[in-house]
Amino acid sequence: MSRLTRAGCEARDAADPLAAWRAEFALPEGIIYLDGNSLGALPKATPGRIAELVEREWGQDLITSWNKHGWIELPRRLGDKLARLIGAGPGEVIAADSTSVNLFKTLAAALSLYPDRRIILSERDNFPTDLYIAEGLLALLAKGHRLRLVDGDALEAAIDSDTAVVMLTHVNYRTGAMHDMAAVTAAARRAGALMLWDLAHSAGAVPVDLTAAGADFAVGCGYKYLNGGPGAPAFLWVAPRHQERFVQPLSGWLGHAAPFAFEAAYRPAPGIGRYVAGTPPVLSMAALEAGVDLLLGVPPAALREKSLGLTETFIAAIDQDADGLGLTLITPRDRARRGSQVSLRHDAGYPVMQALIARGVIGDFRAPDILRFGFAPLYTRFVDAWDAAAALVEVLRRRDWDRPEFHRRAAVT
Amino acid sequence: MSRLTRAGCEARDAADPLAAWRAEFALPEGIIYLDGNSLGALPKATPGRIAELVEREWGQDLITSWNKHGWIELPRRLGDKLARLIGAGPGEVIAADSTSVNLFKTLAAALSLYPDRRIILSERDNFPTDLYIAEGLLALLAKGHRLRLVDGDALEAAIDSDTAVVMLTHVNYRTGAMHDMAAVTAAARRAGALMLWDLAHSAGAVPVDLTAAGADFAVGCGYKYLNGGPGAPAFLWVAPRHQERFVQPLSGWLGHAAPFAFEAAYRPAPGIGRYVAGTPPVLSMAALEAGVDLLLGVPPAALREKSLGLTETFIAAIDQDADGLGLTLITPRDRARRGSQVSLRHDAGYPVMQALIARGVIGDFRAPDILRFGFAPLYTRFVDAWDAAAALVEVLRRRDWDRPEFHRRAAVT
Repeated sequence: MSRLTRAGCEARDAADPLAAWRAEFALPEGIIYLDGNSLGALPKATPGRIAELVEREWGQDLITSWNKHGWIELPRRLGDKLARLIGAGPGEVIAADSTSVNLFKTLAAALSLYPDRRIILSERDNFPTDLYIAEGLLALLAKGHRLRLVDGDALEAAIDSDTAVVMLTHVNYRTGAMHDMAAVTAAARRAGALMLWDLAHSAGAVPVDLTAAGADFAVGCGYKYLNGGPGAPAFLWVAPRHQERFVQPLSGWLGHAAPFAFEAAYRPAPGIGRYVAGTPPVLSMAALEAGVDLLLGVPPAALREKSLGLTETFIAAIDQDADGLGLTLITPRDRARRGSQVSLRHDAGYPVMQALIARGVIGDFRAPDILRFGFAPLYTRFVDAWDAAAALVEVLRRRDWDRPEFHRRAAVT
Repeated sequence: MSRLTRAGCEARDAADPLAAWRAEFALPEGIIYLDGNSLGALPKATPGRIAELVEREWGQDLITSWNKHGWIELPRRLGDKLARLIGAGPGEVIAADSTSVNLFKTLAAALSLYPDRRIILSERDNFPTDLYIAEGLLALLAKGHRLRLVDGDALEAAIDSDTAVVMLTHVNYRTGAMHDMAAVTAAARRAGALMLWDLAHSAGAVPVDLTAAGADFAVGCGYKYLNGGPGAPAFLWVAPRHQERFVQPLSGWLGHAAPFAFEAAYRPAPGIGRYVAGTPPVLSMAALEAGVDLLLGVPPAALREKSLGLTETFIAAIDQDADGLGLTLITPRDRARRGSQVSLRHDAGYPVMQALIARGVIGDFRAPDILRFGFAPLYTRFVDAWDAAAALVEVLRRRDWDRPEFHRRAAVT
């Protein structure tokens, strides 16, 4: 590969078919933001939508807005839009609750469908909330189920006749490694196990086709690549063949077949509606809808190409200029195995990231030693990838990170 | 009692020590809003706070806001404020999830503390989500527990040595009848049962002292009298003596002792922190905080006096002018037994309410035949109570409700 240059990156930006999307986001001046995999950027349309919701719908139309402005439809309307991003159909997805709470609902469903199999199989370095929620459910059930954790490369071989459900995050939050959704799902199905995908780091960034893969359940996060705002509601998908085979345990009133009949006994709503629990947080849902609406207009193949171009550029710049500076790439070089982020180990990971942030390049740190850079393809430029790599090289060469202020730990890293 | 007049109501408004609070709310012109028990009105401070959160904190400071603007503290900071409204102390309350989801957490905790008792005891006309969530939990556990429902007046006698937890809503959503929290809690304790209160229709409207009552658990709703906005997050209280005796099953990552250590096994946060599950919906939380902040400045005794004055005025106006019009009061006349609402039965309840709304008086309908009027004491005037009663009398005298358009049912009633 010929030597990468900043001018070359500028040329790629000039030719980028998605370049115009950056103008749809309200990004701060002078910052290179590579943390859209933790909190996506603010779409310019969102503040106006929220102001309208708060001042006109809530303030003026008050309770009538549940009908008049369709608030009651939000979980399903937004679900139908999300479905288009993950290879699902209408009536298969709801927006609701948090990823954690949705994991609980789907895991409970999965175990109920396979009462005689005892294992939830997952990856040792899956995102912790997935493992914690499985733990919480299993402790509550106390029926001898077990959470079995294996390394990613041992996963397919570990699926056996005692596996009720394989629970995996499609793109690993630390390494950015992406599972082959079709292959792993097929392996689960061959063993007669159910497949639950966590799409937290996938939806809005990499292609997902749950239906083609033949998966059973999925959950995902609204505040990363979907740009739904801090703590945006999560979503949940259940394959149509399973939807009515189970009543999920968080059987709140808005998942009832007739919530406003106020019946004393629970009757589950038909289809995916029964996976709604309580009243949706309308402000946060509306912000998520504004983020999702933006993505519906983006060609998925172009999004993937841009994402791979950005991560390749960053990796190439590090390869070229950071030799001997103590960085180890832990994200797969294989395009098919890479999500939309690049992760690098460094012994002084925490202070290095703080020093980089002080230079206006925002990534994040993941314990114990990982520098994590998310490349949200809609608003990140090739020159951003170049400049971020150059800033990281500078921080390491000048040992900026030695300064004591960069070693102080904040509550959120 | 001498005859009630509109001029008399105007005089009471002029002398009302809480009259100035109405100016803190953005109420629509020409509307009498008596549905603050379903969706509270918009505080004037809220749109500015939300705009600042969206445009500056999210838009400009992005991920750094979790530390810089204290987003990570929201569940506990807001919980400490809510605690002051319900007779609880700092570190005893969190804002989180929905009322339904918080009921699941607290019921699971209660049953775990008393594994040998099999009964969740509740009231037949408790709000349905409370009953549905108990059903969902019991079906999941499948350990022979049972939800036992009795009428309100049979409740204390029904608490026995097999009762694990008594779960009640303090103020009934349909009738507005208020339980004697201290007496019922004492009865539960005498029988060795735990006491879980749902404060959906209490917090922000009637005095609550969970600590003085000796209760064990409570949940409550943010979007009614707390004016937190549509679908605002709910809250949860656990008596300090129980907090660390149990790990609740929705054990998401933000309830972990060290969420950013990303450990593979769950270690519950100390104290109430373990009742947090996933990432909080920050936009909705910030709106709730603006609503709660308003209430912290209001003297509770004055709030209660105003609330009782409003409901008494409305009842007196109906008594005086609606004789023979088919209305039956189902809210207790006894001040000590009344929340902040008035409910009336009428055979044509649904179209009567629609006709009333068409005249600019907004209450709501609860199946099968209940007209429900909430009197949020911070922004409702005595003349509003008078005018609403007069409008209701007019609708009934003129049989406005006969018109076909008032018989069409909407999704949300």
